[in-house]
Parts: sequence; structure tokens; C-alpha cells
Amino acid sequence: MSDPLVIFTPSGKRGNFPVGTPILDAARDLGVYVESVCGGRGICGRCQVAPEFGHFAKHGIESAPDSVSQWSAKEIRYTDKRGELIDGRRLSCSATIQGPLVVDIPADTVVNQQTIRKAVDTRLIERNPAIQMCFVEVDEPDMHKPLGDLDRLKAVLEREWGYSDILVSQHILPIVQKVLRDGKWSVTAAIHQDLESSRPTLIALYPGLKNEAYGIACDIGSTTIAMHLSSLLSGRTLASSGTSNPQIRFGEDVMSRVSYVMMNPDGRGAMSKAVRDAINGLIQNVCAEAGIDPTDILDSVFVGNPIMHHLFLGIDPTELGGAPFALAVSGAVHTWATELDLHMNDGTRVYMLPCIAGHVGADAAAATLSEAPHKEIDLSLLVDVGTNAEIVLGQQGRTLACSSPTGPAFEGAEISCGQRAAPGAIERVRIDPETLEPRIRIIGVDMWSDEPGFAELAKATGVTGICGSGIIEVMAEMFLAGIIDEDGVLDGSKAANSDRIFEDKRTFSYRLWETDNGPNITVAQTDVRAIQMAKAALYAGVKLLMEKHGAQTVAKIHLAGAFGTFIDPKYALVLGLVPDCEIANVRAVGNAAGTGARMALLNREHRREIEDTVQNIEKIETALEPKFQEHFVNAMAFPNKVDQFPRLEAEIKLPARRSAALVGADDTGSPRRRRGGRRRA
Amino acid sequence: MSDPLVIFTPSGKRGNFPVGTPILDAARDLGVYVESVCGGRGICGRCQVAPEFGHFAKHGIESAPDSVSQWSAKEIRYTDKRGELIDGRRLSCSATIQGPLVVDIPADTVVNQQTIRKAVDTRLIERNPAIQMCFVEVDEPDMHKPLGDLDRLKAVLEREWGYSDILVSQHILPIVQKVLRDGKWSVTAAIHQDLESSRPTLIALYPGLKNEAYGIACDIGSTTIAMHLSSLLSGRTLASSGTSNPQIRFGEDVMSRVSYVMMNPDGRGAMSKAVRDAINGLIQNVCAEAGIDPTDILDSVFVGNPIMHHLFLGIDPTELGGAPFALAVSGAVHTWATELDLHMNDGTRVYMLPCIAGHVGADAAAATLSEAPHKEIDLSLLVDVGTNAEIVLGQQGRTLACSSPTGPAFEGAEISCGQRAAPGAIERVRIDPETLEPRIRIIGVDMWSDEPGFAELAKATGVTGICGSGIIEVMAEMFLAGIIDEDGVLDGSKAANSDRIFEDKRTFSYRLWETDNGPNITVAQTDVRAIQMAKAALYAGVKLLMEKHGAQTVAKIHLAGAFGTFIDPKYALVLGLVPDCEIANVRAVGNAAGTGARMALLNREHRREIEDTVQNIEKIETALEPKFQEHFVNAMAFPNKVDQFPRLEAEIKLPARRSAALVGADDTGSPRRRRGGRRRA
Repeated sequence: MSDPLVIFTPSGKRGNFPVGTPILDAARDLGVYVESVCGGRGICGRCQVAPEFGHFAKHGIESAPDSVSQWSAKEIRYTDKRGELIDGRRLSCSATIQGPLVVDIPADTVVNQQTIRKAVDTRLIERNPAIQMCFVEVDEPDMHKPLGDLDRLKAVLEREWGYSDILVSQHILPIVQKVLRDGKWSVTAAIHQDLESSRPTLIALYPGLKNEAYGIACDIGSTTIAMHLSSLLSGRTLASSGTSNPQIRFGEDVMSRVSYVMMNPDGRGAMSKAVRDAINGLIQNVCAEAGIDPTDILDSVFVGNPIMHHLFLGIDPTELGGAPFALAVSGAVHTWATELDLHMNDGTRVYMLPCIAGHVGADAAAATLSEAPHKEIDLSLLVDVGTNAEIVLGQQGRTLACSSPTGPAFEGAEISCGQRAAPGAIERVRIDPETLEPRIRIIGVDMWSDEPGFAELAKATGVTGICGSGIIEVMAEMFLAGIIDEDGVLDGSKAANSDRIFEDKRTFSYRLWETDNGPNITVAQTDVRAIQMAKAALYAGVKLLMEKHGAQTVAKIHLAGAFGTFIDPKYALVLGLVPDCEIANVRAVGNAAGTGARMALLNREHRREIEDTVQNIEKIETALEPKFQEHFVNAMAFPNKVDQFPRLEAEIKLPARRSAALVGADDTGSPRRRRGGRRRA
Repeated sequence: MSDPLVIFTPSGKRGNFPVGTPILDAARDLGVYVESVCGGRGICGRCQVAPEFGHFAKHGIESAPDSVSQWSAKEIRYTDKRGELIDGRRLSCSATIQGPLVVDIPADTVVNQQTIRKAVDTRLIERNPAIQMCFVEVDEPDMHKPLGDLDRLKAVLEREWGYSDILVSQHILPIVQKVLRDGKWSVTAAIHQDLESSRPTLIALYPGLKNEAYGIACDIGSTTIAMHLSSLLSGRTLASSGTSNPQIRFGEDVMSRVSYVMMNPDGRGAMSKAVRDAINGLIQNVCAEAGIDPTDILDSVFVGNPIMHHLFLGIDPTELGGAPFALAVSGAVHTWATELDLHMNDGTRVYMLPCIAGHVGADAAAATLSEAPHKEIDLSLLVDVGTNAEIVLGQQGRTLACSSPTGPAFEGAEISCGQRAAPGAIERVRIDPETLEPRIRIIGVDMWSDEPGFAELAKATGVTGICGSGIIEVMAEMFLAGIIDEDGVLDGSKAANSDRIFEDKRTFSYRLWETDNGPNITVAQTDVRAIQMAKAALYAGVKLLMEKHGAQTVAKIHLAGAFGTFIDPKYALVLGLVPDCEIANVRAVGNAAGTGARMALLNREHRREIEDTVQNIEKIETALEPKFQEHFVNAMAFPNKVDQFPRLEAEIKLPARRSAALVGADDTGSPRRRRGGRRRA
């Protein structure tokens, strides 16, 4: 009789194993990642799995309760001494295979009480961290075999965990003897091994059983720095924190920061210190929130645009300030937290994702890892909007990327009443096309302005300005209401119907909101122009990539970045930020760069994956492409002058196009004009 | 016709290569180490070799002048522009194989003007350093292929030098762009690769061609720190320097330094800083002497006894202060100079040889590497005397080692008129057995005291005391002259014949020298006892190892360490420091630990060799061996009580043994007694 079949879910990996094989050994043999800190001693509880019983037609297997061994003394001792196992779970180091078996690897094998951050935990990330916690019992010193303490530790790590030829972080040498004696010769070694080709490194050492290890994922934005603290063993995110990038005091946007470095001999140093100090502050915050010590953070992943990336690493970004925009380093960077003056463990590793190009940074790489457009069967577009827009177009292994100089308008900068997303900022807008009267929502108040009680609740913050997503909505609603035309001109004739339209220095403005004790919140002609420029740049970049790909349409669009979570995809389409697409296939994915950073933190295979992907991306430099300017000009109109939006128009009635002569020759006299005509009527 | 045979000397490696193969390629193919910095561009001159012509009967080859290609344009350009080649030498990157050929790899391929230190250059060390200097021309930035500057550098290092998967020292990131531009895209990269299994690391980067790289080898003694600066490319030692170990102010001997750490919370830190500061001072000295910059030192090797080793690495040595004498780390240590606050290049690597046991350190390992007793056909003894004596016994792959607590008497400490080796110290002594009148030599004066002019020359320093080698000589001469008997008793009856013997507190002393303006230099009974204790400890250790090995005699003895260079082997035998041996086979080898450190610096294969050797050494802990005490007691007498010295006595007439009863039973009534009897008569 052949050995019983064992199938692991969700991966579906399968193999035959002799009766009596511990489930953990079978999993490892098949490359199914199961954590274990104690090395099968039944004390860490990390290796728990869930045997599943029944007839699994899909797998063609009958998994019976007696296909797994009875509860062992080790498991009974574990639940007695250490903690309960969730019903149905077993310690895979102890439970053995007795017959055909289906074993589910739970996403969450938590053994300690941990706070859970729901916000960032929505995505399930398969774990395979670069850190392995290894509990070992080290031989005591023997004068007849005078191997050093560290050498005996290395010997047992090789014997029991298979780590040969271990490197040792220098800071371990002075502590190894005390830790071994404090732990009475039982210690937990933290081994870092990122690339399979690199030698494993002993980076931290704890007396006794250390059944936890943490990591941080950090997205260094020009404006905001965001950090998540995750358990490397359970995968849970325990705390998140964000702060303004203190480099703002050296320059609002990245190019002004480059200028600052060029003008000030110590500018680079000051900005590197500023961002590292801010990151150290965030480390304190997330650790305080989760109730852990920063020295328990053993791994970290950072992403950022190229200039943030360089300044964080202590590299002068001057070369990025002009052609040929040469990155000092584009590949992934592996270093130590201490090299960057970050205050965690002395052995904590730092991994920075690769940059794609001089304008397309590690943040775009992380967003690509997270959204993976190149893994889609149909052509898929990823747009990550910050001060620049990073654009990635992918399908079935092919990936193209570029960056477009949108400027900061989408973030609320360079808009007369724009502001950063903060309580009191207008984030949603509706305009009645008949009366031109607006309804708004502000951040911090969970109702529309025409609902009862809004005024009372809004008093706490006031209505202070318009944030990025609000700007998109108000522009789109103004366009849909006919207040601005397809060329972005505020229609003065509407002033006759509504006092919300008023003349202002030879152009017109729209009064969106009256504040109690400040100037009114208005949308001026210059604001519309700023958004037109920004969206034209974004669209031109997308168009360029589509041309390079030979594509006419895209099947999916992921909107990430500054306004990613909050933007209404419909309005992005109405304004022509992105090409025509079924609204249902346009998704706001939030901070995709942050998600990608967390993926790289929790699974080192994701690091290899994004490194390979980035190498194979076709990088398009918009500044070198003559057609970019043409696309830009054509994209200034709403939605734009040359492209069709049939899928959008199936759901939304767009105003008529006036300048039919500029519409693509294949589509003159289109139904849209008639529909638009009807609408105006 | 088959490809011509090529034989490289001195290694004798041979192979057949197609006509037209550059000699460099053939050498590399056979694993013959030939340096090249410029990668075959004919500009560094490092790859020079010496084709040899004639009939080589030993190799069975006729090597004709037309077996090597004519001078190439590259070679003519090199000698025109860069410098002459020594007559007969060729650039192996350019000269090609045309027929059967013998090629000598010169030990010295110097291309720059370099000061040569003859003193330490006596031993030829085959080079294969851990540092490779690689001159490359890097692609300029290309916006269409936006690889980072560092990434393009890595690409060319892989393409032209075969280094894939290079790690990059963090400090390179901030400088890479400037160096590439300063060098107009031509740079020299310093690649460190010690173990073949570890990834190559870019540790330094220079604009243009950098045709030199240096390393230091440093022996950290309890009393003295010695450093040599060598060219890693030519192998030459350019400068040497030494200084007192400033830790002496915390304790004269190592155990008192351990006590200091145990008593003072900041004692470890203070002593680590002290030794590192002293080493930084030596780095300044050797660099100044050689006229180079400390940042051009890229590799370094350190050795020291276990306590010096630990304190240098910042490890608390307390565990070494008592049983089981547990080393924190016994294996070789690889780290960075910056981790140890050493001021060289930010990328400079540090290699420390392994320790053998808790009492037998990296210095003993280095001495073993240098003298290699285990490679001898006949049983060979290495004795390295410092404050302790390290003893290594080896033959044909088998090695035994122990440490013996000799105390510092051999270094002149604990001797009433003892002093460190310095100008004015008595280093050689002869005593007329009839008159008991002495002749001496002192350090700094190149004549005996009975030669004309000595008094005049000695005035500069005066005669200040007796150094280690002087103590051995005066004891041995006193024994040979009958002033002290085999039990070490100063014979008061001699006072009748010579006023040099005088009574001093119920024992007798010998007046060795009258100083002009200080106390006389005398040898007291207590001094003899101190030397007896020291030599008995040393001999007992040797005896223990011989017993473990099952050996009755040794064929060779190498005396290394404090008095290594200066001791007269004859006197070491006369006093019974070491077992009987033909005097011609007893060699004083000087600072063998320092030589071993230089070997490990210049050839990384020596690192593997000593790591393997140390692993296989049989370590004997004298404290655990009951017979050690017995051997010690028996070895107190001169030469000692139980062993025979027939080979010594063939050359030197020893005084008769009085206590015949204690002489080995197989040898009672020996001729020695009769000879001794004649002598006394």
C-alpha cells in the first residue's frame, strides 16, 4: 500500500508521506511555510494547523478524523501550560499523518494576546519572513573540547535548524556569554536570511524562549510618512502611525528639496536626519501602541519615491534633479538599521524595494507588488498619485511604467481653497444641475451637509477647505452640471441663474461654501486650470504606455496613493484622469505602496518577485517621448478631446462636446453629442 | 597536434592551452594566483610574469623563446607610459602562449616605488589576498534603461570580473555617484571576498585606476602591540611599528586585567578603548612611515591571546578568568574596522584568527600557521613564550596544543634586576668557569664588554638590567660554571674563590655587573627560583603533550615569542626549558604569531588552513591533567631530574647530577655523571 496522500490548503500542495510523519515535516518537505520557534518541542505553539475532515471532491480525497494521530502528551502539556489552541487545531510538530489527510494552514496562528489593526489587515499576506526565531539548547562549556560559547550555539543551530555557515552580527559577540547564562543555556536565536544565496546571519539572541518577533513597513512619502508594525510570526498588524514628513520645512515638493541640497552644503545631511528622526518617532509610536519594545523589531521594509529613497539612505539626490535623472542605486538595498541611525535592535535589518527609474521609485515598485497588474489576464492599469503620478500598465507578464509630472494639485496644493486631508476638509461634493446648489461632506462628520445636525457637528472643526478627493468631485460635478464646459471654462452665463457663479477678475468662480468666520470656499478658474494640467499629464502618461503596449482600452484600473482610498472612481473617469473603463472595474485601492511594503516585510519571496518584476518592466521616460506633449494637449479637455468613453457613458450622461472638429475622425457625429444635446435641452 | 604544455613555477601547476591563450588566462584556469587590477588593459602592470627558457629536465619540457608571443603594443605602451618591467618580465594579460612554456610567477611584482622592510620580509608568502582591485569602465546613465549608477557598476563587475550577486558596503551608497563622475566613469572597485561561499562585497571605490591596496597585520600582546603594513598587491611589507599595550595601566598581566574588569563596571570598555586607541596610533605610524593614507588600508588581520582577543573585540573576558575558561567565540571572527572604532577605510575588513582554547589564543594559532609543526614529517615542537607559554606539538597532520602558566619571568618580570628588552639591558652573558668573571653584551652596543670601547659606547644608555634572553643566558652560564647546582642552589662555597658570590639574607647572590651610578646588577637565589618555576611549567606542558602523543623525543624545536629571536637555543636546552634535541634543530623563529598574521593577511587560503588546523588540534587543558604537577616537580632541576639529554650533551658538557637516585632507572651510572665528575674536578 502506498503512503497516504496529504494535501495542504490553501496552497493545494500535495505529497505522499509515510504513516507517522509529523505534519510539520510534511509541510516543510513540500515547501509549505509553517512557523516554528521551538523546533518541535511543543512549547511555542507557532506550528498549529487545522486538519480538515470530510470528502473533498475537488481534491479527490477522503480525509477522516483517524487520518491524524491522537492528541499527544506534548499537545496536552502545551494547552495546559501555554494556552488554548483554537478548536480543531493541532501542533503540527506533534500531530502525525495516519491516513489520507487535508490540512489547512491558518492565516493567523496567533499565540499571544495581540491588538489587531483591522484597517490594514484586510489583505491576507502569505507569510515567509526573512527572520526565523530558533529556540535551542546549547551545550555547556567543556574544557576538554574548548569551543567558544558562540561556536557551540552555531553548532546547535546547524544541527537542529540546518543553518550552516552562519554569519554573526558584531553586536552579538559582547552579549553572547551573558545571554547563554541568563537563559541557562536555552536561548532563542533570530536568524536573518533574505536571499537563499546569502549566508544566514544571527542578528539577535534572547535568553529562553522568545516566541515573538516584529517588523515595520514604512512608506516615506514627500508629504506623509506612514508606518505599520506587524508580527512576523502571526502576520498581524498591531499598530499603525503616520506623521508629516519634516523635510517639508526644506521644501514643499521634492524638486525644491533637491534645490535645497544643491544650495546648502549640509542640506543633504539635515534632510536625512530629519526623515530618520521622524521615522524613529513613528517607531516609538507604534511600539507604544502595541506595547512592545523597539528592540523586538528585527526586520524593516522601506519604500519611497526616488528622492525620498535617496535622502533616507543618506545619498545626495542632486543627480535626480536633472537629466538623465541618474539614480545612485536602483536595485533593492539591504542594510542594517544602525547604519541609518534607526533605533530598533542593533541587529535589525533594513530592506528597501528597488526603484523602477529616476522618477519612478520604490513606492511605485511596492504598489506594483501589491496590485500586480502584470499578473492580470486582461490589460490592467495602476495609477499611484502623489506629487507625481506613477503609472504602471501590465498584462500577462508584460509591464510598462512611467511617471507623469502631475504636480501637487491632486493633493490639494496649488488650489486656492485646497488643503491636505484633515478634519474639516471637504471630501465629497454633489451639485444640483438645475439649481447649482451644492451638498458636501467633510472629513470628521459622517453625514451630508443637507442632513439634519450637520451644522452642529461641523462646528468642531469648521469647514476649512477642499482636500484632494473633494477637488476631483467638485470639478466633476461642476462639469456634469454645466458650470464648466469641456474646455474647462467657467460659464459666466450661468451667473444669471445662480448667484453661486460670480465674476472675479475677468473670469468666473463658483462659490462652494460659506464659512462662518473666514473667506468663502470657492472654486476659481485657475483651480480648474490646475486640475486640467494635472489630469492631462496623468492621462498623457497613461496614453503613452497604452500606445507602447499597442492597446486601445484597459480592462481594469487601480487608483492608489494620496486620494486612492477616498476617490470615487466615477469622478476620476468623468474628468478623464484615466481612460474609459467599466466603472465596476475601477477600484480605489488606497495606499498600495504601504501594502506592498507589508508584503515584502512578511514574505521574502515577494522581495524576489518585485526585484524580478522591476528588472523586466519597460521603463518609459515621458520627457524623451515626443508624443507625450501631444497627448497632454489633447487631454486638457474634460474628459478629453480625442478619446471615446463608451463604457463610462453607458452609466453616466456626459455633457455634449462642443469642439466636434477635434474629436477622432472615426467618431464624428457620435451619439454622445446627441445625448449631450438632449441634456442641455 | 595537441595544445602546448604550460608549467607555472614555483607551484608546478601545469596544463595544455591553445596557441594564442594569454598567459594570465592560463594561470587563472589552473588556479595560479596572478594579480591584475586593470583587467587586462595593460595599464596596471600587476600581472607581470617571467617566462623561462631552456631545457627543464625536471619538468620534461623544452621552453623556447618563441614559445611566447612577441612584445605587444600594449606592453610597449605600458613600459613607455607607466614604468619599466624588470628584464625578462612580460605582462601576462598581453603575452600569449605560442609553444611549450615555463612561466615563473615572481614573488614580487612591484610596480610602484615602495620602501621595503627587510626585517619581516625574510619569509616568502604566496599571495592570494581577500581583496581584489578591479578597474572598470562603467556605462553612462541612460534614460531609456534607467539602471542606477551602482547597478551599472555591479553589472560591469559581473561582466568583466565575474563577480555576481555583489553586496555593497553601506558607506559606498552616498559616494558612488561622485566617484563615478570624478573618474569620468572609470573607477577601481575594491572587492572583498574571503570565504568562497560568501558573497563578494564592494568595500571601497576609487576614481580612475587605483593600482595599490594595503593591509595591516597586528599582534596584540599583553605587553607589546606590533603591527606590519603590507601591500596586498605586491606582498611587500612597507612599514612596521610597535608600542606598549596601554592596558598595562589596568594590570600588568592578563589575569589582573580580568580582575580589573570584574571590579570595575566600565573596566571592559576602558580597556577595549585603550587597545583600539593604541592600534589607531600604530596605524598612523605605519602609514606615515610608508607615506600612504589610512583609507588605503582595506584589509586587516589581528591576533592575540584569548583575553587580548576578547578585549579588542569588546567582549567581557570574565569567563576566561576561571574554569571552564569559556571563550565567547573560538572560531575566526570576520568584522568591519568601523565596528571596532578603527580608523582606516570605512569599508576595511577585520579578520581575527581562531582561538585554540581558553588559554591558547589566536596568537598561538598564528604561530601554528607560521611554523606548521603538524606539516613536519618528524615530531616538531613549537613553543611560544609570553606571559604564558603556548605549546604546540605536531607531526604529519596530528597536532596537540596546551598552555602552561610560566608567568612573566622569561620576559624579565619578577626577576630582581629584570627588565623589558630595551637599550641598556643585558642580553648576552658569558661566565668564565675558572674565575667566575662575566662578560656581557647589552642591547644597543654591538660588542662584548671585554672589547675595547665598550665602556665608552655603553655610557649612552648605561647598563640598566637584564632582559629575557639575558636571564636565560646568565642562569645557564651560572649553572655551567657551577655557581648554581642542578637544584638551582647558589653555591656559597664559591664565595671563597670569587667575591662575585656574596651572602645576602641567608642565601647567596651573584654580582653580574657594577653600574656607575646605581645598584649593582645581581642574580639572587629568588631569581633562580623564579626561572626554575617558569621553566618547569613550560617543560611540564611539553612533557604532557609528548606523553599524549606517545613520543619520547622531538626532532625539531621552534622557539617563538618574547625572547624568540634572541634566545640562544643552546641555553634553552642547558636549562631544560625544552626536551633534548640536536642544537642545530632548535631554531629561534622570532614573532611567529606576527608572521602568521601576515600570512593570513596576504593569502586567504591560509585563513582556511588555520581554521581547519585549529578545529583538528587536540586541546589539552593542563589544569585537568593530574600528571602535569608531577612533571612540573620533576622539571625544577637543571636540565631536569628525570630526562636524558644525550643530544645536548654530545655538544655541551653539563655539570654532573648529584641526586643520582632521581635519575631515570634505565640510565643510572650514566657517562654524564662521570663527565660531570671530571668537570668538577
